[in-house]
Amino acid sequence: MDLNADLGEGFGHWTLTDDDALLDCVTSANVACGFHAGDASVMRRVCDIAAARGVRIGAQVAYRDLAGFGRRSMDVPPAELTAEIAYQIGALRVFAEAAGSTVAYVKPHGALYNRAVWDDDQAAAVVEGVRLAGGDLAVLGLPGSRLLDHSRAAGLTAVEEAFADRAYTPQGTLVPRSEPGAVLHDEDEVVRRSVGMAVDQGVTGADGSRIPVAARSLCVHGDTPGAAALARRIRAALEEAGVAVRAFA
Amino acid sequence: MDLNADLGEGFGHWTLTDDDALLDCVTSANVACGFHAGDASVMRRVCDIAAARGVRIGAQVAYRDLAGFGRRSMDVPPAELTAEIAYQIGALRVFAEAAGSTVAYVKPHGALYNRAVWDDDQAAAVVEGVRLAGGDLAVLGLPGSRLLDHSRAAGLTAVEEAFADRAYTPQGTLVPRSEPGAVLHDEDEVVRRSVGMAVDQGVTGADGSRIPVAARSLCVHGDTPGAAALARRIRAALEEAGVAVRAFA
Amino acid sequence: MDLNADLGEGFGHWTLTDDDALLDCVTSANVACGFHAGDASVMRRVCDIAAARGVRIGAQVAYRDLAGFGRRSMDVPPAELTAEIAYQIGALRVFAEAAGSTVAYVKPHGALYNRAVWDDDQAAAVVEGVRLAGGDLAVLGLPGSRLLDHSRAAGLTAVEEAFADRAYTPQGTLVPRSEPGAVLHDEDEVVRRSVGMAVDQGVTGADGSRIPVAARSLCVHGDTPGAAALARRIRAALEEAGVAVRAFA
Amino acid sequence: MDLNADLGEGFGHWTLTDDDALLDCVTSANVACGFHAGDASVMRRVCDIAAARGVRIGAQVAYRDLAGFGRRSMDVPPAELTAEIAYQIGALRVFAEAAGSTVAYVKPHGALYNRAVWDDDQAAAVVEGVRLAGGDLAVLGLPGSRLLDHSRAAGLTAVEEAFADRAYTPQGTLVPRSEPGAVLHDEDEVVRRSVGMAVDQGVTGADGSRIPVAARSLCVHGDTPGAAALARRIRAALEEAGVAVRAFA
Repeated sequence: MDLNADLGEGFGHWTLTDDDALLDCVTSANVACGFHAGDASVMRRVCDIAAARGVRIGAQVAYRDLAGFGRRSMDVPPAELTAEIAYQIGALRVFAEAAGSTVAYVKPHGALYNRAVWDDDQAAAVVEGVRLAGGDLAVLGLPGSRLLDHSRAAGLTAVEEAFADRAYTPQGTLVPRSEPGAVLHDEDEVVRRSVGMAVDQGVTGADGSRIPVAARSLCVHGDTPGAAALARRIRAALEEAGVAVRAFA
Repeated sequence: MDLNADLGEGFGHWTLTDDDALLDCVTSANVACGFHAGDASVMRRVCDIAAARGVRIGAQVAYRDLAGFGRRSMDVPPAELTAEIAYQIGALRVFAEAAGSTVAYVKPHGALYNRAVWDDDQAAAVVEGVRLAGGDLAVLGLPGSRLLDHSRAAGLTAVEEAFADRAYTPQGTLVPRSEPGAVLHDEDEVVRRSVGMAVDQGVTGADGSRIPVAARSLCVHGDTPGAAALARRIRAALEEAGVAVRAFA
Repeated sequence: MDLNADLGEGFGHWTLTDDDALLDCVTSANVACGFHAGDASVMRRVCDIAAARGVRIGAQVAYRDLAGFGRRSMDVPPAELTAEIAYQIGALRVFAEAAGSTVAYVKPHGALYNRAVWDDDQAAAVVEGVRLAGGDLAVLGLPGSRLLDHSRAAGLTAVEEAFADRAYTPQGTLVPRSEPGAVLHDEDEVVRRSVGMAVDQGVTGADGSRIPVAARSLCVHGDTPGAAALARRIRAALEEAGVAVRAFA
Repeated sequence: MDLNADLGEGFGHWTLTDDDALLDCVTSANVACGFHAGDASVMRRVCDIAAARGVRIGAQVAYRDLAGFGRRSMDVPPAELTAEIAYQIGALRVFAEAAGSTVAYVKPHGALYNRAVWDDDQAAAVVEGVRLAGGDLAVLGLPGSRLLDHSRAAGLTAVEEAFADRAYTPQGTLVPRSEPGAVLHDEDEVVRRSVGMAVDQGVTGADGSRIPVAARSLCVHGDTPGAAALARRIRAALEEAGVAVRAFA
């Protein structure tokens, strides 16, 4: 099982994610590329640490929206979105390669992630941006999303991910953040679900039913207090359960 | 002699440079990278046309200052400047490579260009950013600038450029824009000086004296009305005088 | 009949609208406030000229989206949108008042204008922002829009506007720009329709039917070549037809 | 003695200053206006709390530089700077007035504050922007600065401020941050100096000499951990020493 987290989400004088601590336990770092967060200095620093610790580097691409942290869905025309995705990947690649590593995958952030689940045009535009950037990139996304469909159709590696701290609907999609109980705050439960997803490929849904979750990567959140401590617990529990924690193939 | 021009200086809904027409006569395109001008869509478009026409692509790196078009000198700490330069090069490289070309050189824009003439720290920071970006890049700058000194010291190819429409001091530096006569508006004279610089490696200074100008590239401006027509005249005059117009080696 | 146009849509080094010429013939200036276009210097300049010529000043508020010129619909949470609207009005008010005038009305721009036609939450949020800004502001919008409904409910003056160069559906809404024939390019026809809207309160629909258009303001576009010349023709034709061209009461 | 602090320096998803706690002990709030920090929602919130608690509201104007937090000196042409200052004041005024208060003063931030000490053109441009904004604003600055000179010459109230946690040179200027000992970290000493400045109008210089400091306002920093606790201690110590802590007249 791969453990991924959003990292490098500071900007200028502002900090957010505890990059140092998280880079000690995740296997894949979704590095912000400057559109919703992250500036050149932060990107360089995160890439340097990730490369030194053998953590895989991915481009966390987003809408161009610093004020909204990329969480506001935007009607960006597909051709513009494609170019913006490629721009972000290219910018990050410089720092990954300077650190002796590479950008190995792409994961959309926030509103773009959610929209690429169902919006065919934007999902296709993101994938076209990934293709434009070249370099044999994998795409990380929600199982069943249009994003992963388009990725597979384009010959890219599609990596399905699961969320340890999010409630699932019976259909296997995430309960929207606007609904009560969407985010789980009980750390013990989050750890238990993480192990369940990795060992049994399933999770208990919001209605108590058993939901199959076939994920190759598990997303842990990096922008909450205690994020790093929780990520360490999840990793330890996975390893204790005999799950090999390593970057996806 | 190489002919270079600043291109792709539109942004979103705004246009500035007549990219299509200029890409028909220059041999090197200094493409804006999004910090003072240029967005991902413009960058992609200019790279596509440049590659199709065999025009060399360079990164026109700048201060992060859209509102000031990169023309306001900024005290950016060297480490931040280095990262910002690398970021811009990487972003452009995606589009150059997707078009089957490459980023071949770097030229600072506006206030950064002028400051890198004398500011040792910023000149070194720019060169460090170029090195960080890798890929064997040349650096285009003013003869005698700290920028070119640091480029040579770093083992990079330093390319000296001349300006066809700018007055020179007896010391061979440019007369500042704030002084009268700094920019030449007589097109015939600009064409004549261009040929003189290429054939005789010299130009007549503001005080009438003979000033040696040893440049491998000639900068023509792209952001004025009639820029493309003037560039065509310069190219024709150079070729008529037996000067081979092609990208620097 | 009031004649309004979008003005001050340059930004930094970029220009767009022919502000000087248009301020000679319109009676209301929708001044960009820095979120989709317009910077502080442009805003000051346009307010100075408008005040000197007795042109009414309005705040052309928009999504925070310079790269997309405010033309990309955004899911901005209502409370944030309200604050952003008030911010823009306040910024413009400084320049209007320094010029001896005032901000008299508010008109949303681009995607926000279109969305406020039907999106109840965003329409209400815009109106709440206008109320927050105080100062007895009118709101300019499409007849039948949620924006004008909420404006009236809040006790604000709602001013309906018509578009001289846009095709209308039989229902009285605008034919979307994505459909053929949405924008009329025949200047004679645009002038004729302008007079018809003012004199007969109606226009011929895309299907030939008669469509009532009860508007107190007519929008002429400022961001196309020849915009000022066309605006002058419209104004002359209105005056010739006995229509008093003056700012709405 | 007035106690002022920089507040509202979050942006979008990022937070920085502990606005709630600091608004409980300062008498003047320097509210960021969106150019170096602060967005419309933060500005609204800080103004609402400040007005409710009777804390005076000031505009903390800055260079347009979110990425550099306004800490990078910029060669902004005076006319542009003037317009940018007025823009920021106007934007903040909307929220101050909606909360039933007003913008009472202006204090430049970061690099602009430091530059307005000696740069005659920029100091004059800032003051011109304050005048443009109207409304009888005071200006807060360093004793002896060009900023306060120009403020007085323009008929504005010039308010001199002192820094409790900064070392002073024998000439009464601040020891630059780049030098060792520039910022005092011993909280007891900071509290002692605060009282000394208020009661004896003086402070002990870096060289041990006695330096007169005639200030009507004392700046406490809001962007460090523990800032609010320290501010509370300073306020309590001042009151214990019989100093009336209230906004400047």
